[in-house]
Amino acid sequence: MFEKILENEKKRAPLVHCITNYVTVNDCANILLACGGSPIMADDGEEAAEITSICGGLCLNIGTLNRNTIPSMFLSGKKANELGIPAVLDPVGAGASALRTETALRLLREIRFAVIRGNSSEIRTIAGGGGSTQGVDAALGDAVTEENLVQSADFVRELSRRTGSVISMTGAIDLVTDGKTVYAVRNGTPALSRISGTGCMLSAVTAAFCAANPGDPLRAAAAAVCAMGLCGERAERKMLETGAGNGTFHMLLLDEMSRLDIKTLEEGKKIEIL
Amino acid sequence: MFEKILENEKKRAPLVHCITNYVTVNDCANILLACGGSPIMADDGEEAAEITSICGGLCLNIGTLNRNTIPSMFLSGKKANELGIPAVLDPVGAGASALRTETALRLLREIRFAVIRGNSSEIRTIAGGGGSTQGVDAALGDAVTEENLVQSADFVRELSRRTGSVISMTGAIDLVTDGKTVYAVRNGTPALSRISGTGCMLSAVTAAFCAANPGDPLRAAAAAVCAMGLCGERAERKMLETGAGNGTFHMLLLDEMSRLDIKTLEEGKKIEIL
Amino acid sequence: MFEKILENEKKRAPLVHCITNYVTVNDCANILLACGGSPIMADDGEEAAEITSICGGLCLNIGTLNRNTIPSMFLSGKKANELGIPAVLDPVGAGASALRTETALRLLREIRFAVIRGNSSEIRTIAGGGGSTQGVDAALGDAVTEENLVQSADFVRELSRRTGSVISMTGAIDLVTDGKTVYAVRNGTPALSRISGTGCMLSAVTAAFCAANPGDPLRAAAAAVCAMGLCGERAERKMLETGAGNGTFHMLLLDEMSRLDIKTLEEGKKIEIL
Repeated sequence: MFEKILENEKKRAPLVHCITNYVTVNDCANILLACGGSPIMADDGEEAAEITSICGGLCLNIGTLNRNTIPSMFLSGKKANELGIPAVLDPVGAGASALRTETALRLLREIRFAVIRGNSSEIRTIAGGGGSTQGVDAALGDAVTEENLVQSADFVRELSRRTGSVISMTGAIDLVTDGKTVYAVRNGTPALSRISGTGCMLSAVTAAFCAANPGDPLRAAAAAVCAMGLCGERAERKMLETGAGNGTFHMLLLDEMSRLDIKTLEEGKKIEIL
Repeated sequence: MFEKILENEKKRAPLVHCITNYVTVNDCANILLACGGSPIMADDGEEAAEITSICGGLCLNIGTLNRNTIPSMFLSGKKANELGIPAVLDPVGAGASALRTETALRLLREIRFAVIRGNSSEIRTIAGGGGSTQGVDAALGDAVTEENLVQSADFVRELSRRTGSVISMTGAIDLVTDGKTVYAVRNGTPALSRISGTGCMLSAVTAAFCAANPGDPLRAAAAAVCAMGLCGERAERKMLETGAGNGTFHMLLLDEMSRLDIKTLEEGKKIEIL
Repeated sequence: MFEKILENEKKRAPLVHCITNYVTVNDCANILLACGGSPIMADDGEEAAEITSICGGLCLNIGTLNRNTIPSMFLSGKKANELGIPAVLDPVGAGASALRTETALRLLREIRFAVIRGNSSEIRTIAGGGGSTQGVDAALGDAVTEENLVQSADFVRELSRRTGSVISMTGAIDLVTDGKTVYAVRNGTPALSRISGTGCMLSAVTAAFCAANPGDPLRAAAAAVCAMGLCGERAERKMLETGAGNGTFHMLLLDEMSRLDIKTLEEGKKIEIL
């Protein structure tokens, strides 16, 4: 299912421009290299659009927003739209402050995103669905469960149609949709939420896969979700074998992404069409 | 001694707002998750106070200060005081520049801190005691030793009374006091000063423990100091077993914090009342 | 050859001021500690020059440039020149945007650098030689190869004479010159380019070695290049033994730098005079 996606990623090694938070920026750079892409970070208004124009993909992440980088996001987003470069939005902490919520909504109004990738609270916030973000983690009541799976699928499908973006809403069960097909992905482990940056990393990988696979953001986003989840599972297994903890898991996650091949991904993915 | 402190931390999983330097911010996020808390970083004036208001604790760290984030520290600090949210100050590099010294002193004048956590040079600088900071590390002449232990205890006790804050002054021997009781902690290893960010991480953990244990900043601060020191000792032991170095130690430190349970902490703590 | 360089580094433990990008700043701090130095990061105009004045070396790195930190680079650079503190320039991504290229060129006009350390595309860009930077990685056509080794040596020698700086141009073959002697270094492994920050780390180590060895920037720069390359080789060997990946390699690289002794460096260096 993801042969072409991964093959293109390795072959094209797309340069991905990230305007992202300074908390997890190093993780984003390293996961981009690990998955076969190449990172460049630039957030000053004087160079943002120019840097976007030499890239294959753009990832806008609103963690640690500030007054200098917000305008750069708009400049880069518009340049990406102008040049047909796929852009990914990660609305980190939308709902936690007016600045984040409003910036996310303004970005959605002014820029076309290939993919919007967030947790359930963030996605519900930008959908206006009354999400209740607790900081940067999803609130329990917003989570996708086996019980509300059908309604959740309807929700993301409708949001995708309304925004024109692939929606990649991640949690214990991840949903990825282009407004028609809805994939449910059951890869992953709670360990991924015990280290910082796994959501940001997933958004960066999504941007890289989109960049290498123009015109196929649905499968690119689904492949990224399966890949990160599967790498998390494999890293956790190794961590538990040695009785280690969070630091080791963090390192092993990058190991797994750097060694992920198509056979492992195809055999390990847990994806179904709803 | 620390049963309740740790139990509350795991149970309440407090959200901790950090306005901190970009050098060690990722370590702060990961140690907060490892100790049972949850991090959120936000430093723009437009959202700083709002983010503080949804958190259980605040950590202000003055490494890599800049003109945009300084006002945010005041906004967040005042909001924390208004709402009774415990705030921790880490005066990184106070004494190394006028900007750092003056910002630390202004913060102390305008904001009540539950805990001030710094090395001996930083604490002596803010006490006006003529510390001689060498960059962000403590100057040798400022260190607490067995010889000057009584005078050092008097010094921190007096500073605690004057500021109304618990003082957590760390080094080879750590002193933690609320102006009455002075604890001396002998956990730790010089390896902790051979990697970047262990002081910043300790301040973040201190904020998390305070957030989960309102009204008990003395024991929260002492528990954080014992926990970080003990995790450092345990990480170093494992590092030496494998003949590894700084990178491995850094990873193992996060491992140890994520696996620290109350039994290990109680048995491993080296704390006495002076 | 490098006995004195390394001995001085360990003995003097120079404080190195870095104004650097937020992507790899933590790696820079940790590699400085690992090699025997001590890091301090400060980029606000109000303290930049003052911080420089208490340091032994300065490292200016133009990744993630912004309008606030550019003036600080000039203030610190001029202060370093005034006080005779060796300064290193890392022109990250010069050629990728006008802002980066022009800032690098302005820095070169207004500040004397002991060493300029970059990849072949960045160095060719600042030499006006028509480099074709692809993001922050070197373009293939700019690389030093066995075939163009003599011309490349002539190129860096000439650039060194023109700028008055030691040129440290790194890639599969590294060239280091003071305008007279040209060293070719064949340490290193492609694994170093599969993680983020190894170039930035090398520049930081170069600044530390220069700081500890005033008046000998050529050998300081050459020692740094050999040390990073050799640590990369040794880290890769261990990584491959365990079947690990990028995350492990990153950690082992810091391990190796923290354990590098003069015997290992002297036996492992692959350096010749062209």
